[in-house]
Amino acid sequence: MSESAMLSAAQLQRVVDANPYGCWLQLRVHAVTNSGIELRVPGRPEFIGTQALQRLHGGVITSLIDVACGYAVLAATGQAVSTVSLHTDFHRAASLGELHIEGRVLHQGGRICTAEAFIRDDVGTLLASGRCTIHKSREIHPALAPQP
Amino acid sequence: MSESAMLSAAQLQRVVDANPYGCWLQLRVHAVTNSGIELRVPGRPEFIGTQALQRLHGGVITSLIDVACGYAVLAATGQAVSTVSLHTDFHRAASLGELHIEGRVLHQGGRICTAEAFIRDDVGTLLASGRCTIHKSREIHPALAPQP
Amino acid sequence: MSESAMLSAAQLQRVVDANPYGCWLQLRVHAVTNSGIELRVPGRPEFIGTQALQRLHGGVITSLIDVACGYAVLAATGQAVSTVSLHTDFHRAASLGELHIEGRVLHQGGRICTAEAFIRDDVGTLLASGRCTIHKSREIHPALAPQP
Amino acid sequence: MSESAMLSAAQLQRVVDANPYGCWLQLRVHAVTNSGIELRVPGRPEFIGTQALQRLHGGVITSLIDVACGYAVLAATGQAVSTVSLHTDFHRAASLGELHIEGRVLHQGGRICTAEAFIRDDVGTLLASGRCTIHKSREIHPALAPQP
Repeated sequence: MSESAMLSAAQLQRVVDANPYGCWLQLRVHAVTNSGIELRVPGRPEFIGTQALQRLHGGVITSLIDVACGYAVLAATGQAVSTVSLHTDFHRAASLGELHIEGRVLHQGGRICTAEAFIRDDVGTLLASGRCTIHKSREIHPALAPQP
Repeated sequence: MSESAMLSAAQLQRVVDANPYGCWLQLRVHAVTNSGIELRVPGRPEFIGTQALQRLHGGVITSLIDVACGYAVLAATGQAVSTVSLHTDFHRAASLGELHIEGRVLHQGGRICTAEAFIRDDVGTLLASGRCTIHKSREIHPALAPQP
Repeated sequence: MSESAMLSAAQLQRVVDANPYGCWLQLRVHAVTNSGIELRVPGRPEFIGTQALQRLHGGVITSLIDVACGYAVLAATGQAVSTVSLHTDFHRAASLGELHIEGRVLHQGGRICTAEAFIRDDVGTLLASGRCTIHKSREIHPALAPQP
Repeated sequence: MSESAMLSAAQLQRVVDANPYGCWLQLRVHAVTNSGIELRVPGRPEFIGTQALQRLHGGVITSLIDVACGYAVLAATGQAVSTVSLHTDFHRAASLGELHIEGRVLHQGGRICTAEAFIRDDVGTLLASGRCTIHKSREIHPALAPQP
């Protein structure tokens, strides 16, 4: 979508690491390319929704859609972002284990962007997907400021 | 929507307490009535998304929409539920503090239900709202089984 | 939501009548109050999706959600609007006949508003509901300009 | 998604032609492949929402998202479909002119499928996109029955 990503994977990881909920999710930035970002999470016991079935809670899944869409826009533009609305489709019940999360910008407007995200397990099965309307602020994200 | 709720607040709290992610969210069932449910969460430091601004992460907000919609259908029907899709609108930036979450069934079909949820802070300001498509299984939820 | 509606029913009807698709839908403004708007459409044969079953097409239903949300914001604010995103839940198959469409503002932000809409048949059965993210322009809608 | 499309373009065109709203939209089936469908509409004056600006009404756009998602599932499976919920993002104001509409199946479950759609103008600019939750019935669509 964008000609070249504005943030490197290392810069995006610094953004994640300054975000307490992102830390709790144990988000790792696996790749940032011109076509999008890939995040991974290893999974933790608190992600479980249905104890008897050991299935991931939908709230964790929809959190990851939010994160991947917002960071896709941030990585592509370098601008601070906030989510206006979010839509998630849950395709399959997910078990605890490493998740691969892909985020991509679908459309960049002046202030309003649309991004989409796909969550797969570690063998590539699509578990959930969704999209967010993202508001892009006029300000450059602090992560792009020179490091002292 | 339903003529009378199938679960009491105490029964719904037992369902929540058997759900690791619900425990991590510190969900408390405040009320179950014929018109819906009310949940509360006290807030915890890991809910923060933007450290500098001490704002709640959108992922926590959208998790609460998921939880409130699913439990609204469960409380009304007594049937095990899973979320098919979710839509959240983020209205205002939210600060750390007690959240009041209302869930209501909008429509009950044979297997597919629609529920909506509203998240307010402790002075009643609307922070976010949304709706979910919920699949209702044919099975009664174990929480309704007689307790030994 | 708003303290008082900015447009009267007659003013909103003039807006509708200047909108070719709204005319084709045969939209009639039934009421504009401080809590929202009510539109009605009589139904026309081209609304049918499934010929054999004489059921309304989902595209007509989702068009009415769009219209009702946008006009709810316009009526409440007097400002020109455009839809950013739309979500529709289809609750029941709908037959050809008069539809009652309710639109309400859920939240008014600086530029971004959320509105919801409910479509019922002429005996009050809920057929569909949904919500839109609406962008409110800085400009007053021409319908509020003095009529020469 | 599907290994091979179940309907040919000619069969899908017959389905469209038996659908009064689809006829009114002047839907033409341009292609059906294993990866999805492409529809085209030439545009008609009643599609206009804002007379002064000659812009397409959002209701027409969201109708086309519904149509493309439903027919993508129908073409892939041969089964009769109905839309459970729909989400549309409006990316750019659209002018009257030929529209190219792409529909793709994202996930096929037992009864519940997710499909996505993209609407472009005749030079390929993305105007809108969206996704639908589609219920797939157990019955083969009549269009697949042998023609007498």
